Amino acid sequence: MKAEIIAVGSELLTPYRRDTNSLFLTERLNRLGIEVIRKSIVGDDRARLREAFEQALARADLVISIGGLGPTEDDLTREAVAELLGRRLNRDENVLREIQARFRRIGRKMAAVNERQALVPEGATALPNPNGTAPGLWLEAGERIVVLLPGPPPELVPMFREHVEPRLAGRAGGVELASRDLRVTGMPEADLDQLISPIYTLYPDVQTTVLAAPGEIEVHLRAWSAERAAAEKTLDEMVERLVLALGENVFTTGGESLEEVVARLLTLHHATIAVAESCTGGLVAARLTNIAGSSSYLLGGVVCYSNELKSAWVDVPAGLIEARGPVSAEVTTALAENIRRRSGATLGLAITGIAGPGGTPEIPAGTVHIALANGEATKSRSARFPGDRERVRRQASQMALDTVRRYFLYANRKV
Amino acid sequence: MKAEIIAVGSELLTPYRRDTNSLFLTERLNRLGIEVIRKSIVGDDRARLREAFEQALARADLVISIGGLGPTEDDLTREAVAELLGRRLNRDENVLREIQARFRRIGRKMAAVNERQALVPEGATALPNPNGTAPGLWLEAGERIVVLLPGPPPELVPMFREHVEPRLAGRAGGVELASRDLRVTGMPEADLDQLISPIYTLYPDVQTTVLAAPGEIEVHLRAWSAERAAAEKTLDEMVERLVLALGENVFTTGGESLEEVVARLLTLHHATIAVAESCTGGLVAARLTNIAGSSSYLLGGVVCYSNELKSAWVDVPAGLIEARGPVSAEVTTALAENIRRRSGATLGLAITGIAGPGGTPEIPAGTVHIALANGEATKSRSARFPGDRERVRRQASQMALDTVRRYFLYANRKV
Repeated sequence: MKAEIIAVGSELLTPYRRDTNSLFLTERLNRLGIEVIRKSIVGDDRARLREAFEQALARADLVISIGGLGPTEDDLTREAVAELLGRRLNRDENVLREIQARFRRIGRKMAAVNERQALVPEGATALPNPNGTAPGLWLEAGERIVVLLPGPPPELVPMFREHVEPRLAGRAGGVELASRDLRVTGMPEADLDQLISPIYTLYPDVQTTVLAAPGEIEVHLRAWSAERAAAEKTLDEMVERLVLALGENVFTTGGESLEEVVARLLTLHHATIAVAESCTGGLVAARLTNIAGSSSYLLGGVVCYSNELKSAWVDVPAGLIEARGPVSAEVTTALAENIRRRSGATLGLAITGIAGPGGTPEIPAGTVHIALANGEATKSRSARFPGDRERVRRQASQMALDTVRRYFLYANRKV
Repeated sequence: MKAEIIAVGSELLTPYRRDTNSLFLTERLNRLGIEVIRKSIVGDDRARLREAFEQALARADLVISIGGLGPTEDDLTREAVAELLGRRLNRDENVLREIQARFRRIGRKMAAVNERQALVPEGATALPNPNGTAPGLWLEAGERIVVLLPGPPPELVPMFREHVEPRLAGRAGGVELASRDLRVTGMPEADLDQLISPIYTLYPDVQTTVLAAPGEIEVHLRAWSAERAAAEKTLDEMVERLVLALGENVFTTGGESLEEVVARLLTLHHATIAVAESCTGGLVAARLTNIAGSSSYLLGGVVCYSNELKSAWVDVPAGLIEARGPVSAEVTTALAENIRRRSGATLGLAITGIAGPGGTPEIPAGTVHIALANGEATKSRSARFPGDRERVRRQASQMALDTVRRYFLYANRKV
């Protein structure tokens, strides 16, 4: 089964907005074994909308549109599709009552324009929308299916899951998707590809997608099959071989972010952490605290940009900063050891560096030092990252979090 | 002049990747008075590509494609367009020499497959690509123009600016775009719209787009005209009326981020700042330090999640935390005053709150306190933000930065 997605809205043809719903829809459709063969973005123009649906229906078994179901004159998706398929638009009294009830619930008076949202093309099924006024619509035209969904994600997502997926599941021919995602850090994309291409080329039926971001590479594996169990087994085998090739650079096969993995490891080991940051300026603490429950393992953090505060707040001797420079393994080590002691945390983590722009001949922009102290020993690492300020800071925060992750890997092995 | 954009690549039809180049192209095309009427995303399939170009050329004067110019079997844009327009593909010796020279420069041997990239359709102009191997292509078919661009942004962006824009400028009929962007914080979208809709409806020739994000609303104004000066004057007048209606909620008319505005104000006033963060966990410091030169005004920050560290690191009396609770105006005020004193900064900024999930009957999730101390007085504010943990934290960081911005507004007025 092949699908096309049409995102509707003139605002999506400006430089300010892009369609994001289609990624969610693609993911869900792919799960059902439905391939997305085209995405189109069309403005609020009746003739252009009609043409877009007409051409999509000539290519695909399923056409899903997003948006253009609102109450205003601009919202023309319903009308364009009814016209194309030669269906009359009738007012559906049940739908109207639901819209009226919704307005009563939120304590507002329904405007007359909202009555338009109760128009349903002949033979179509209205899909309930508990989170908004516009119902979705399911239409069948011969062998083809047309689904019209509202644009706001809080309305679209539950409607698709509850009312569209079950209907599609029966039609999609029993092909199912099995998938695995690996996330990798600590190696460049070219090295990763050299290590894994001999493996994934052995599995031509598995779609392998490698995506690189600063400090992180994602490897997506997807296999469609009528026999789910066989596909799962193939993927398990493939993941095993990939993890063997990539080793501990793989930080998850379960879709977690690096901060989630670190949070899980800290919790598992009943460990706490405190962070002293210079060049990342709070980014590592902000990432760790973006996870619910972070107060149980992150005791606190200090952003110490100036040399004075490195001394005053984290007890780094002024003489050491003078002798080694603020961006050095020695000062970073002192920061990690002292933030640990001053916070009473199990681990102290410190980051110094030059995020850029600028830098010196001795210490070019992108230079970063990381240190992790556990009270017995302190491990320090350094790196030089490419890219602008934001990319350097992002990569530095990845390496800092990854240092904590690897610490627990080794800690585990010793057990 | 009307344009369509075709983004080419099967990876853009997966759940992992979306086209981002088209926003840049739309912005540049709009500047030349060229309207984008459709965007399409098509996989690496020769027949589907051919059809996409054929249908786009039936609607638009200009069709620009992105991607599919690489050296591999998957890269079919060149072939699909040549076939559609009935042009033979000839090897261009100049292009080939440039590709060979590029490989020599980067010290690698050119693979035989790269010769494909020197194929140029009859009558087409190759557009130089100093940042990659694939040249762009400019084709004319009667009144229609087809431009093929490579996908990587570091190749596409300079090629478009240097070789496509000058060619289009001559054709686009002398219509120019004038634009203004306002960014607003501290008010909900519905209130904003109520204040400004009586104004923007007076200017039907100006395209007004209102976009809301957590803690921030953007108002984009765009006017196309053959007389640039007149359009600029209209927009200046409109901006003046909008700013008058929205008051100091407008934080920039120059496209700056809120942290950039705060950085500029701190620098202008030779002021420094230190931040004590609880629920934002380093986010405010991270935003302020993402700006180059931040070491001149941000002295440091403390992330003090636990009550113990609020006392140990920022001298908040344990009795005060006990009596008022850690999320209170009193504790936030103490944090702001003490972080200022301990850092020696001009200003001390503090944020406490419950980012969620969770919360208590007395203090529900989303509750946030902000305090700003200058040594003479301390101003504190509180709010309750909707949304999940990430949205609450984002809105809290906006309100904290905005508190600093408004402080300088009032400070200025006293002068």
